[in-house]
Amino acid sequence: MFTNFDGFGSVPGIEVGRSFVNRRALANAKVHRPLQAGICGTALLGAESIVVSGGYEDDEDDGDVIVYTGQGGRDPDTGRQVRDQTLTLGNAALVTSQATGAPVRVVRAVRHGSKRSAQPSYRYDGLFHVEDSWSDVGRSGFRIWRYRLVQRDYAKKETSGQSLIEPIGRTKPTRTEATFQRVIRSTKVAEFVKQTHDFTCQVCGARLRTPTGAYAEAAHIRGLGQPHSGPDVAGNVLCLCPNHHTLFDFGTLTIADDLTITDHAAGTAIGRLREAPDHQIDRAHLAYHREHYSEGWKHSTDGASSDDIDAEN
Amino acid sequence: MFTNFDGFGSVPGIEVGRSFVNRRALANAKVHRPLQAGICGTALLGAESIVVSGGYEDDEDDGDVIVYTGQGGRDPDTGRQVRDQTLTLGNAALVTSQATGAPVRVVRAVRHGSKRSAQPSYRYDGLFHVEDSWSDVGRSGFRIWRYRLVQRDYAKKETSGQSLIEPIGRTKPTRTEATFQRVIRSTKVAEFVKQTHDFTCQVCGARLRTPTGAYAEAAHIRGLGQPHSGPDVAGNVLCLCPNHHTLFDFGTLTIADDLTITDHAAGTAIGRLREAPDHQIDRAHLAYHREHYSEGWKHSTDGASSDDIDAEN
Repeated sequence: MFTNFDGFGSVPGIEVGRSFVNRRALANAKVHRPLQAGICGTALLGAESIVVSGGYEDDEDDGDVIVYTGQGGRDPDTGRQVRDQTLTLGNAALVTSQATGAPVRVVRAVRHGSKRSAQPSYRYDGLFHVEDSWSDVGRSGFRIWRYRLVQRDYAKKETSGQSLIEPIGRTKPTRTEATFQRVIRSTKVAEFVKQTHDFTCQVCGARLRTPTGAYAEAAHIRGLGQPHSGPDVAGNVLCLCPNHHTLFDFGTLTIADDLTITDHAAGTAIGRLREAPDHQIDRAHLAYHREHYSEGWKHSTDGASSDDIDAEN
Repeated sequence: MFTNFDGFGSVPGIEVGRSFVNRRALANAKVHRPLQAGICGTALLGAESIVVSGGYEDDEDDGDVIVYTGQGGRDPDTGRQVRDQTLTLGNAALVTSQATGAPVRVVRAVRHGSKRSAQPSYRYDGLFHVEDSWSDVGRSGFRIWRYRLVQRDYAKKETSGQSLIEPIGRTKPTRTEATFQRVIRSTKVAEFVKQTHDFTCQVCGARLRTPTGAYAEAAHIRGLGQPHSGPDVAGNVLCLCPNHHTLFDFGTLTIADDLTITDHAAGTAIGRLREAPDHQIDRAHLAYHREHYSEGWKHSTDGASSDDIDAEN
């Protein structure tokens, strides 16, 4: 049967929960195509799928929220981190997935018996989205890339084995075909900060008007979700326009302790953060953001070497 | 027990599915406070709750997606639409809810027996978010305001009867406390349009850079969801920066057939939409957007009269 499967999203005929005896079976089913790499994808198009092996010391798996560690820098024999990971190959692909909102297939390794050395089987666990990406220094002492992937409820409703879909789009799209991106969360504290700044962007001074008022977004400097565990207090929130919120979340903008704003894409300072009398920004959170979100701008995505691909993750 | 209930979100102690014998009981429980109006809220803060009576000829209820009709303009005796609705009071409150992302409690009237005249009971059906708002000409021939409300999956997990929460925020916020806004959907066609424009905003020429590429959003001119039923084809999609996507969705920007862009907040034209050779925009969809999204800018939110509140909806 001809289908529109192009590598992203559900694989026709493969339901959530399907098990595979080994990586070869996973690859044959097109659920996760590489036999060794933990991430399948490119910086240009994003990541199709990942394998959560459970073997990585810095991974965290909460069922519908996964904190996943990037690939590279591990000793192939011992599996230990022996050098910094770079924002290349699969690691760059997962950042692209965050930008496009395209769904990522998640496969979990399931180990049988108590021995860590036992060969795992693999279970397809549905579609996730990359909500956040940052760099960190792992338990090894080397720099790693990390991603928060969240399972979308619509993914559970998604049906596989769809019939022919015209390649130029659909006149009657169904909800399950859409991808999602940029789920903006707000809280009562965030609403307070936006009102304090009268919905004016602290970076550029823009104030977006709607017919019934103004629109701004609250950017948590240190994220609320695991593993950042930032507090939901005004000192951890900025009032930003959607554009500068996006750039702040991707680390294109960082803010120094003196509130100077640096645009890393331009390589220059672009001014100073606007302040409000009742809104004191916690410098510790600005430092956390600089440390974890600007790393991608320090390294070129060129010059990746093939030994950056390792067995799993 | 002291709680942080301030009118928005779950009412402590009231679980989803709870029934109430009449509007008085609903009001006493603070689930929906007004005894007659279908919308509880203000243009400043947004809507706390709505009652879906099922009695409005233009309402549509698909369970987790509701297309709700605004209030006002109905004859109190016959319930028929006898004049245009305006973007005031509860109607303005629901637009504000779209901008803030705050959850709206949804109550459904449940009618017993076959008689339409039978007194209904009321059931609290959980938290929804306003994803879209527009105006339309109803079956009556008069202008009405309409809203698409979508039930969020997190709302189902939300617990009530929470204990004391410090008013300045929380150091360990839980996921269930966050509100959501601006869920941006994308599709394969949308990805094509973004790539065709090299992620450059068709309104302002901005191109937001991330460490692994550029970021833009695909704006469907005529929405994919019910009841717009816009097609997912390139001619119905614009490549916009997040700021201009927001302004387009709220009708602050409209685009004429000659691609002149009007900023209704400024009251002036602000230039012409940027084109790409392979991307022909369907003028019928631009006309649909102008007709349904710019109406809010034609009427002041001042001067609302009290007879704009009617019994239900």
